[in-house]
Amino acid sequence: MERKQILIKHSFWMKQQEDSPVVLSSRVRLARNLDMLPFPHALTQQEAKKIEKTIAEVLREIEVENENLAYLSLTELSTIEKQVLLEKHLISSSLIKAVGSQGVALAQDHRCAVMVNEEDHIRLQVLMPGDKLAETFRLANILDDALEDKLDFAYKEALGYLTACPTNVGTGMRASIMVHLPALAITNQVQQVLGALTHLGLAVRGIYGEGSQAHGHIFQVSNQITLGKSEEDIVVHLKAVSSQIMEHELQAREALRREANLSLEDKVWRARGTLQNAHLLTSDEAINLLSFDKMGTDMGILPKTKQKFAALLVDSHPGSLQYSLDRELSPSQRDEQRARLFREAMS
Amino acid sequence: MERKQILIKHSFWMKQQEDSPVVLSSRVRLARNLDMLPFPHALTQQEAKKIEKTIAEVLREIEVENENLAYLSLTELSTIEKQVLLEKHLISSSLIKAVGSQGVALAQDHRCAVMVNEEDHIRLQVLMPGDKLAETFRLANILDDALEDKLDFAYKEALGYLTACPTNVGTGMRASIMVHLPALAITNQVQQVLGALTHLGLAVRGIYGEGSQAHGHIFQVSNQITLGKSEEDIVVHLKAVSSQIMEHELQAREALRREANLSLEDKVWRARGTLQNAHLLTSDEAINLLSFDKMGTDMGILPKTKQKFAALLVDSHPGSLQYSLDRELSPSQRDEQRARLFREAMS
Repeated sequence: MERKQILIKHSFWMKQQEDSPVVLSSRVRLARNLDMLPFPHALTQQEAKKIEKTIAEVLREIEVENENLAYLSLTELSTIEKQVLLEKHLISSSLIKAVGSQGVALAQDHRCAVMVNEEDHIRLQVLMPGDKLAETFRLANILDDALEDKLDFAYKEALGYLTACPTNVGTGMRASIMVHLPALAITNQVQQVLGALTHLGLAVRGIYGEGSQAHGHIFQVSNQITLGKSEEDIVVHLKAVSSQIMEHELQAREALRREANLSLEDKVWRARGTLQNAHLLTSDEAINLLSFDKMGTDMGILPKTKQKFAALLVDSHPGSLQYSLDRELSPSQRDEQRARLFREAMS
Repeated sequence: MERKQILIKHSFWMKQQEDSPVVLSSRVRLARNLDMLPFPHALTQQEAKKIEKTIAEVLREIEVENENLAYLSLTELSTIEKQVLLEKHLISSSLIKAVGSQGVALAQDHRCAVMVNEEDHIRLQVLMPGDKLAETFRLANILDDALEDKLDFAYKEALGYLTACPTNVGTGMRASIMVHLPALAITNQVQQVLGALTHLGLAVRGIYGEGSQAHGHIFQVSNQITLGKSEEDIVVHLKAVSSQIMEHELQAREALRREANLSLEDKVWRARGTLQNAHLLTSDEAINLLSFDKMGTDMGILPKTKQKFAALLVDSHPGSLQYSLDRELSPSQRDEQRARLFREAMS
């Protein structure tokens, strides 16, 4: 398949899940390394190349649910293409900076993505829309098994999977959910609700991972502990937390409707009006307006639009914006094209 | 005619003049007093009543261009009704506070309005839409002559008409134009352009006269000097100034179109979008958005709306808003109804 065809499409996780207004997506990521070989940071260029080749061959061969993966070598990709992958949550920001023997294998609808020579030799992820941790975990296991059939993973009975960073040793698993919490944000309850999670061994980050800000009232919640807990326990635990967060957010929305309905309507309709009419939109403004627009739509205040939240969220980011127009854009040109995107998508 | 029918209608000056995007309206006001009687501030209640009765009778009898005037005694009017008259520029704010023997006579379309026992016994005004000072002056003279036929005005050969405040002695005339200067405001040229006018014997005020703020980038420019200049000179002079102000504003608009077209489009489309979608609008926000909306419409960037600028401007003020809905509204209820008004008028 053409690289452009693979990259340009909306990932599966970006499809709107009408039944899950708060949990936008569910992700399981497993860290794996080849046995008896140094971790990526300690590899020579030649060793890294050889490892990439070995893993890429396996990735091209395996089938996940009757489907092959497409392998993309990072060195073949332009800066904008790498940015698109990052914006779609298919590679990490550390991979974008890599210059050597890194790559990523993608399923047709991007639900599976396997990074090669990131922090570990293999970082496989399954990413699905909505509140689907169990299903996501099931598919990650299938993918993991398919790889383990053909590759020897570094594994110690007493520890579990060995990883470059000790925080991943054990299951090597991070399960995470991406949640949209506009009502908790408006009512200043986000800190209170999410702050408690760190005591439960969970981490909270912004939409683009560690150190990124919580633009658009979107947060990622993931497990911190990988050692001494089974994968199933991690998933069950996070699933329970996810239900609680959703409950809090929905309660906050109902409280807003009850106690400040008019200013709620005002806020979401203004967001819609600005997205439909602006001719210049910065990334920050767009994502915040889009967040209120989504809340208004989810609450039945605003009519549904052609294009849905997560698709617009990603499409309006700099990389995706430039990639879809097939040209580089200055920041002010991006603001112009972003506004055009929203006017067309929301009218 | 029913009082409500008189008060509720849109005044002639509020009708959009497509050929005059900058000069919204033209006004001529003449101060007259009955001969040999104290000025209003020095009258006893009884004297004031008698004078009101005398003038009101004359006002009810005279015809201006084949049309009678309707006389309204201020004491008969509710607070909201008085506010409506003020918002339509048919009475002054000092008349609204009056509790004695004041009144106002109105032509059917409000183009003529005669206040009784304001600062002077008679304050007659003619108010028309657009750049029509000469026509306004002509009609003011007809009205003045009609009154002078039946009343003895205080007049001294050497001074001219005598008035309660010395600044009005002479012609007793104030001619003024209401101008809309959004582009000069955006480009920070308003002070420069209007500041120069004081040296030319002109005064600049906000939309509701002395001490009022220039909301919506609307300014009133009027002559300061009434003594030693003929009425015709005052009109010719103000007309020339009006042309210059209009020229400056139109140049500033073209400069914006040339140098900042995108942010201009952004600004006016956002204004339109917010007016079409907000569910709460304060008076200040509404008038400023409406100002940008008008500029965008006048420049051909925005499509025309059903309801026009000056009509919306007045209808969205607290008095008019409450009067049209026939009930008292709290400030937050007004914000809600104002937003509803704009949504309906602009969609």
